[in-house]
Amino acid sequence: MPRHHMRYAVIGTGAIGGFYGAKLQRSGLEVHFLLHNDHAHVQRHGLKIYSKDGDFSLPAVHAHVKSATIPVCDVVLIALKTTRNYLLEDLLPPWVADHGILLTLQNGLGVEPRLAQLVNPGRVILGGLCFICSHRGAPGEIHHQDYGSLTIGAYGDGYKPQGVTPLLETMANHWRQAGVETFLTPDLGYARWKKLLWNVPFNSLSVVLSATTTEMVTNPQTRTLARDLMEEVQQAAASQGVAIPTTDVEQMLHSTATMAPYVTSMKRDYDHKMPLELEAILGYPLAVARRKGVALPRMTMLHQLLQHMDRHNRHSGREVPGETPAVAPA
Amino acid sequence: MPRHHMRYAVIGTGAIGGFYGAKLQRSGLEVHFLLHNDHAHVQRHGLKIYSKDGDFSLPAVHAHVKSATIPVCDVVLIALKTTRNYLLEDLLPPWVADHGILLTLQNGLGVEPRLAQLVNPGRVILGGLCFICSHRGAPGEIHHQDYGSLTIGAYGDGYKPQGVTPLLETMANHWRQAGVETFLTPDLGYARWKKLLWNVPFNSLSVVLSATTTEMVTNPQTRTLARDLMEEVQQAAASQGVAIPTTDVEQMLHSTATMAPYVTSMKRDYDHKMPLELEAILGYPLAVARRKGVALPRMTMLHQLLQHMDRHNRHSGREVPGETPAVAPA
Repeated sequence: MPRHHMRYAVIGTGAIGGFYGAKLQRSGLEVHFLLHNDHAHVQRHGLKIYSKDGDFSLPAVHAHVKSATIPVCDVVLIALKTTRNYLLEDLLPPWVADHGILLTLQNGLGVEPRLAQLVNPGRVILGGLCFICSHRGAPGEIHHQDYGSLTIGAYGDGYKPQGVTPLLETMANHWRQAGVETFLTPDLGYARWKKLLWNVPFNSLSVVLSATTTEMVTNPQTRTLARDLMEEVQQAAASQGVAIPTTDVEQMLHSTATMAPYVTSMKRDYDHKMPLELEAILGYPLAVARRKGVALPRMTMLHQLLQHMDRHNRHSGREVPGETPAVAPA
Repeated sequence: MPRHHMRYAVIGTGAIGGFYGAKLQRSGLEVHFLLHNDHAHVQRHGLKIYSKDGDFSLPAVHAHVKSATIPVCDVVLIALKTTRNYLLEDLLPPWVADHGILLTLQNGLGVEPRLAQLVNPGRVILGGLCFICSHRGAPGEIHHQDYGSLTIGAYGDGYKPQGVTPLLETMANHWRQAGVETFLTPDLGYARWKKLLWNVPFNSLSVVLSATTTEMVTNPQTRTLARDLMEEVQQAAASQGVAIPTTDVEQMLHSTATMAPYVTSMKRDYDHKMPLELEAILGYPLAVARRKGVALPRMTMLHQLLQHMDRHNRHSGREVPGETPAVAPA
């Protein structure tokens, strides 16, 4: 099919889906956006992207408040926060059971197998890893501060490596013509585990310690802890047949130490009292490793700590109602 | 020696040393208090104890600003916070090398062997475990809210059990006559490790999670984590030849769940921006277990997290000077 006849659907028009969908539409593709809160505004005024690569507006977009009105598309981008995945079954257009390529731009591990459960066998599922700093502004506005690349790989049962297929090459072409730096990976599982190598220690510890990346790699104790956690990610990956070389660990510690201090995405969610993406970053990786008999005490402990912190963060206060804390005996 | 001729020295006249020392003096013993900040005030006005068992004043006490002026005593109580143990060498009266029984009322593990290094071989060293809620008020004032018992055991090299010696019986007699509920333990090491069974999870997690004991044992994830940590304490103790039965673990979880919600002593120190007793609660136990080849990942991780939090808590802020945190790529 000629490129300009390609139709995309975007499920979740936030900082990721809104940004990439807008780039695709600007490049001449037909894009259908599913929105919730901002629907009326976007239907009237379109989308506005403030980008370090140049601002642009799309005065008219196909805005949908329900997936039922989205016509059959060639590609469906999934760009919800993984914490809202319990909505997926209702948000996916009914025709995806039989039509369209699914490309998830979500974080962490386990998002592709979850999609596979929701559609008929044989549907093509791709995973996309976004390396981008962007956030939502006013209704219909997205701010793109930095980076913006995408790495795409094909998903096979249990993250079995699928190689670089012709379909992936075609997809990469679309994205590159839309001005998105695009990489292809023959092994989506490796790419996802390698991203976890960073996300597990730095997203998690940034919330527990209220620290920036620079603080975490500078302080000797937390640097050691970050390395210990990375080794557990290596063990978890190995339990799934994915070999992460130790040079990846060292290189990632080094590059984190030399980059500008960052507030991680999980810390940003925490500061905004949003739910944390714990299942995708910790829960699912822990569960698949546990099924292979691999115990990961540090990651388990992080998961336990963060579940507690997440719950308290999103609820009113930390006090136990009706009880007055006393001082403990020494 | 008749009881009323006994002389006590108190090194560290705070919430613990001031309280117990005052009780001893009130019962007729001669007590010498070493003080720093409050010395002038206490020398002039004495000590005032506000206690749930009845308030009392000691208008005249022997107050010393330097240990050099303390006469030779029969018993030296060590009641410094363990975080100030680097001062011990200077604060112990020179005559303790050859005279007097040392009785440390400090928290955690490793305080007795530390004392043993500072005195000549053969000095009697006893360990006391205080179960008390008390805190300092205005200069010379101590508030005793709850509990107040003391458990004493004799220290032998490597915490080898010493049994209940006649000396311990004599000591217990002194304390009981001073109105202190006193227990004797034949195995100081077991008593110290058993106290760690509670202190390791609940002191530590209360700071990391900013939670009360009730919250920690009520939430299923943190209750599991507390139990996992207790099992590591069991392993550490076992590496030192100390058997902590699993019934101790279950009983402690149960009693913590049924008692009133507590702010632990470490959380209180943290909230007052005081140094945390990390070495006595985590560092020393981890070090002796490591020397026996026992790795304790959860306790190690707690130690790493708390060292970071402690340092940041006591210093001005959490920002890295001159650097502006950016937002991390997703």
